[in-house]
Amino acid sequence: MGLTIGIDVGGTKIAGGVVDDMGKILRTARRESPATDTHAIETSIEELVAELRADHEVVAVGVGAAGFVDSRRSTVMFAPNLAWRDEPLRDEVAKLVDLPVVVENDANAAAWGEYRFGAGRDEPSMVCVTVGTGIGGGIVLDGQLFRGRYGIGAEFGHMEVVPNGRRCGCGQRGCWEQYCSGRALLHEAREIADVLPLFGARLLALGGGEPEGIEAFEVTQAAREGDPAAVSCFDEIGMWLGQGLADLSAVLDPGLFVVGGGVADAGDLLLDPARRTYAAQLTGTGHRPLAEIRLAQLGNEAGLVGAADLARAR
Amino acid sequence: MGLTIGIDVGGTKIAGGVVDDMGKILRTARRESPATDTHAIETSIEELVAELRADHEVVAVGVGAAGFVDSRRSTVMFAPNLAWRDEPLRDEVAKLVDLPVVVENDANAAAWGEYRFGAGRDEPSMVCVTVGTGIGGGIVLDGQLFRGRYGIGAEFGHMEVVPNGRRCGCGQRGCWEQYCSGRALLHEAREIADVLPLFGARLLALGGGEPEGIEAFEVTQAAREGDPAAVSCFDEIGMWLGQGLADLSAVLDPGLFVVGGGVADAGDLLLDPARRTYAAQLTGTGHRPLAEIRLAQLGNEAGLVGAADLARAR
Repeated sequence: MGLTIGIDVGGTKIAGGVVDDMGKILRTARRESPATDTHAIETSIEELVAELRADHEVVAVGVGAAGFVDSRRSTVMFAPNLAWRDEPLRDEVAKLVDLPVVVENDANAAAWGEYRFGAGRDEPSMVCVTVGTGIGGGIVLDGQLFRGRYGIGAEFGHMEVVPNGRRCGCGQRGCWEQYCSGRALLHEAREIADVLPLFGARLLALGGGEPEGIEAFEVTQAAREGDPAAVSCFDEIGMWLGQGLADLSAVLDPGLFVVGGGVADAGDLLLDPARRTYAAQLTGTGHRPLAEIRLAQLGNEAGLVGAADLARAR
Repeated sequence: MGLTIGIDVGGTKIAGGVVDDMGKILRTARRESPATDTHAIETSIEELVAELRADHEVVAVGVGAAGFVDSRRSTVMFAPNLAWRDEPLRDEVAKLVDLPVVVENDANAAAWGEYRFGAGRDEPSMVCVTVGTGIGGGIVLDGQLFRGRYGIGAEFGHMEVVPNGRRCGCGQRGCWEQYCSGRALLHEAREIADVLPLFGARLLALGGGEPEGIEAFEVTQAAREGDPAAVSCFDEIGMWLGQGLADLSAVLDPGLFVVGGGVADAGDLLLDPARRTYAAQLTGTGHRPLAEIRLAQLGNEAGLVGAADLARAR
């Protein structure tokens, strides 16, 4: 089996790696993501591929992109945080790198990575939820990546969980990712620091005395140190995580949920309240098996590894 | 291909039919459903099968049951409206009728019926939503009935759409079927008749002067006659239908939704507001294909026909 390159195009950076058929990353490289310039993103991918294949012979390139990828896995129809609109990404990149190219939604690629080489290896019916700035989703059914009729399945972050709730970047209101994400974590922490400055004293100090100064990693840090206000922020978004997983079980009834993304770095601070709410809110709870809820294992590289593997299996 | 019998066990009645391999029903029969007596339900099924096979040679029996059916399609784990708790229905019925038996969730069976012989024939990626007293769900992916890891997928009616909302028979609150169902239709109509008796005069008259006297079929009748209050009831539950379909598209991205059940007898009175809300509330709307939303074609017999076909394909 030859080596492949996985590329993960996010809103702020593009990461690439040479990956072998056991999911091992042999070399990595990265570039800034010129989010508003379609052509520049493709040039950056070309440069990354050139750099990565300098010492390794590779047979294909898989690109995970933060957008709606069509069912032929060639066109990015829409990307909320990037400039792509009906962009024929596969063919454009293939022209530049002269290798076979597969394009996949980044969260789908991450789910595939976790299924093949990470936390989902033993469960062919798994759902991956990536809790980062927003929520990314991926579904593996019977050991196959599920994409939906038009390629836009598993956009869980945009299920409405609160009617007429908080505004979302997708244009709607009340989407799950507005209540369970890094953004939601900051919303909680900053609100506590603002409204309950004594309870939130530690958070406020980390923010340099300003609620708006608090960053997500600082909330995680304070929660790990046992700060009750920071812990309560994770209780809140963990509750919303568990509720959303219960909703997903009402549709998909998977055997396993794998939870990744930057917010999941907090580990059980996030997953414990999620497990409690999941078990309590699931329909028919007590009369059915519960899905396991497990941390992702591949970290930030899940998307890159998954995209590389999808390119190998193309 | 031999004939098979389909049996649909609901909360109040048991319907059976002899079905051929084109989905045509050759003979039907029915019994009351002794909901609280497990053994009596099985005896009723035995009697129905005996009656139905008197004039037709049949090779198998498919039973659609209103409950959680395990992934081996043999045991009813839980039935909110029936007495079954971990009931080995397949083996019990097989003993009584001496034929191969397949057990399936009733809404899954109905979805399969619509896919094979009804409104979903041309679309291998379809979701069926049965809006009756509650909501039943079924999913067909790539031409296969999707059941989930433990057999309990497609219980859409119990997605939470309103945090801490109306109580549901499943034990939770805010479930979709509390806002989009025959029960929800009556909730609207009776509330209008109670709070807005002038606006709701026609509904109140149909209820014999009492809000509690209004029945769901009367709301449909009044809406068909153009009564604005009755039409507004369908606008409300149609809006909730469209919102739930948008949520399902965020997960499953199907090509087609088929909407059946007693409430769907109102046709476009229900589907028009659902289509409007769906198109408006879908994430990424304007940048993706919309799923079609279509009325079911097989009526009350979808479950029976689907169960018979699943028995044939066992």
